[in-house]
Amino acid sequence: MTDHKHPFEQFEQRRQQGNERVLDTHSLATKRFFGLDKQVYADGALDARTKELLGLVASAVLRCNDCIDYHVQQCIEQGVGKEELDEAMMVAMMVGGSIVIPHARHAAETIDYLMTGRPPN
Amino acid sequence: MTDHKHPFEQFEQRRQQGNERVLDTHSLATKRFFGLDKQVYADGALDARTKELLGLVASAVLRCNDCIDYHVQQCIEQGVGKEELDEAMMVAMMVGGSIVIPHARHAAETIDYLMTGRPPN
Amino acid sequence: MTDHKHPFEQFEQRRQQGNERVLDTHSLATKRFFGLDKQVYADGALDARTKELLGLVASAVLRCNDCIDYHVQQCIEQGVGKEELDEAMMVAMMVGGSIVIPHARHAAETIDYLMTGRPPN
Amino acid sequence: MTDHKHPFEQFEQRRQQGNERVLDTHSLATKRFFGLDKQVYADGALDARTKELLGLVASAVLRCNDCIDYHVQQCIEQGVGKEELDEAMMVAMMVGGSIVIPHARHAAETIDYLMTGRPPN
Amino acid sequence: MTDHKHPFEQFEQRRQQGNERVLDTHSLATKRFFGLDKQVYADGALDARTKELLGLVASAVLRCNDCIDYHVQQCIEQGVGKEELDEAMMVAMMVGGSIVIPHARHAAETIDYLMTGRPPN
Amino acid sequence: MTDHKHPFEQFEQRRQQGNERVLDTHSLATKRFFGLDKQVYADGALDARTKELLGLVASAVLRCNDCIDYHVQQCIEQGVGKEELDEAMMVAMMVGGSIVIPHARHAAETIDYLMTGRPPN
Repeated sequence: MTDHKHPFEQFEQRRQQGNERVLDTHSLATKRFFGLDKQVYADGALDARTKELLGLVASAVLRCNDCIDYHVQQCIEQGVGKEELDEAMMVAMMVGGSIVIPHARHAAETIDYLMTGRPPN
Repeated sequence: MTDHKHPFEQFEQRRQQGNERVLDTHSLATKRFFGLDKQVYADGALDARTKELLGLVASAVLRCNDCIDYHVQQCIEQGVGKEELDEAMMVAMMVGGSIVIPHARHAAETIDYLMTGRPPN
Repeated sequence: MTDHKHPFEQFEQRRQQGNERVLDTHSLATKRFFGLDKQVYADGALDARTKELLGLVASAVLRCNDCIDYHVQQCIEQGVGKEELDEAMMVAMMVGGSIVIPHARHAAETIDYLMTGRPPN
Repeated sequence: MTDHKHPFEQFEQRRQQGNERVLDTHSLATKRFFGLDKQVYADGALDARTKELLGLVASAVLRCNDCIDYHVQQCIEQGVGKEELDEAMMVAMMVGGSIVIPHARHAAETIDYLMTGRPPN
Repeated sequence: MTDHKHPFEQFEQRRQQGNERVLDTHSLATKRFFGLDKQVYADGALDARTKELLGLVASAVLRCNDCIDYHVQQCIEQGVGKEELDEAMMVAMMVGGSIVIPHARHAAETIDYLMTGRPPN
Repeated sequence: MTDHKHPFEQFEQRRQQGNERVLDTHSLATKRFFGLDKQVYADGALDARTKELLGLVASAVLRCNDCIDYHVQQCIEQGVGKEELDEAMMVAMMVGGSIVIPHARHAAETIDYLMTGRPPN
């Protein structure tokens, strides 16, 4: 039963199992694509922290809640604080418009859960 | 328990609580952004009724169900009728393509609920 | 030589000739699609004037300058005034974000040309 | 009770009932739009099989799970195999980026269910 | 002077020189990304011909003229005929809506040039 | 005559004159929207430098060359170096896919011009 889990925990489980399914393929390109997707966020000229913020804003303006959840978690692991996340999401709202607001609500819920354990709405 | 509520009512509750979370921030720009988002739909050279229809079609072609729900409700409060909503959604489908059809289904369900109280599929 | 024509006139010519090329096909569906695209904007429960405004805002949030030019022209033919167009574009900017600003610049230029004959930037 | 149905079966039911609602309208254009949407995928210069793959990739890069479910089902009915579907989804990920990955997970789940009856994550 | 070249030839030159600039970087991930972008369209469970059609439709619904030009050229090299390209573009218009029409005009011009040498509008 | 100017300089002139046109309106909301768009990138919990990188990646995944040009310029004024810009654009390509590549070419040209004065392709 996943019903009593926080939506973020449900997402985490679905994401992991889903990736296994996607990678259960003969397509070598798919495996390389997933490998590259990890490599891109590693420390380089820009540090991983900044890159995760870039990933979060890109996910927000493209309006993908699963991607937002993933990058919010990565940002927090990299030590990004709530006010920084709020300002990053504000850049996303400015560039992407009010259509991003529902995703800002989603991000706020995930941030709350990961930082304080507060349950979803 | 929100389980027995119509999806629109669940959305309404999530929207209100979510906005409170988003606005629980030090980012002044965020508060201004939300204020501007209200101001834009007020009567002006175009009346609020027409602007809500514009907001609905913009939401539909950008394919955001939460935004569709919000603007369908606002349109109905402004006295827009079912046939007008149907034609507005048809403009959205024409401009945005068949990818908009799932959102037209969502809009039809919300319109039905708000106009007749009919339950979701 | 199209060089000395206003960009809007160049667009008009390209649009007409381009549509002829697209319709020079065995695909019956393509012809029907173009026919439907005309029918959708005809007077109905919503008048053509409102529908053209809907088409304009849909085009603006989806960020297509050619479509913006077309619907600005149709709006003006339907008697929509500059302040109404400005407010419609403002709804588009609010929903679609600052990424719509370059298209608001484009729309402003076309509106200026069609209403006052003023040349482009 | 739809709770114990596989998500794909729930989608199927919602889709059918939703389409009925959308088509419960005076808008003739809407009916024509739905008719055209069927006609486009019929055998022609390209066979229906290829067209369904095109519809799947278009749905994936535009990131619509309902549309992905529909075209995955149509592809399988046309005899498209798992490895072909995997490669089509890989083209979608390449063109559309990592933002498509959550939809690749969704597609993988639907493919699994329709080909092997395996339950969702 | 590139002025007297057909737009497609100008695109080809810009594309090649532009890719060299993008690849003039220390970012190893960028080089891998470009390598993967070639690999994905190679013969596999789906042949290169079908994959190029998938790339074309993905490019069309995402509305990128440069990508359309590239995949039209690849399709023609793979032996795809005009009627097949027309039907692929029709799938793109159906899924992506009338906002794709300007890109269908662009595709028609490139197809004409590459198949018959006819000049642009 | 703007013909002999670098494309970036032409963009700069068009942008400035275009903004004046957009702001030549009775719509107070439009002026507020433009004001907010400046405020969002000011130093705060995140510094302006990071925010401009966020604006660049958001512009790149949403595929707007004018917005890319603007944020590349702002990034360089904030002291962001070429390798950092390359990695930011690589995040954009990873999230947004190969459809972003033409915009990476455009960004590379603007970066080259602003950093070394090298002419466009």
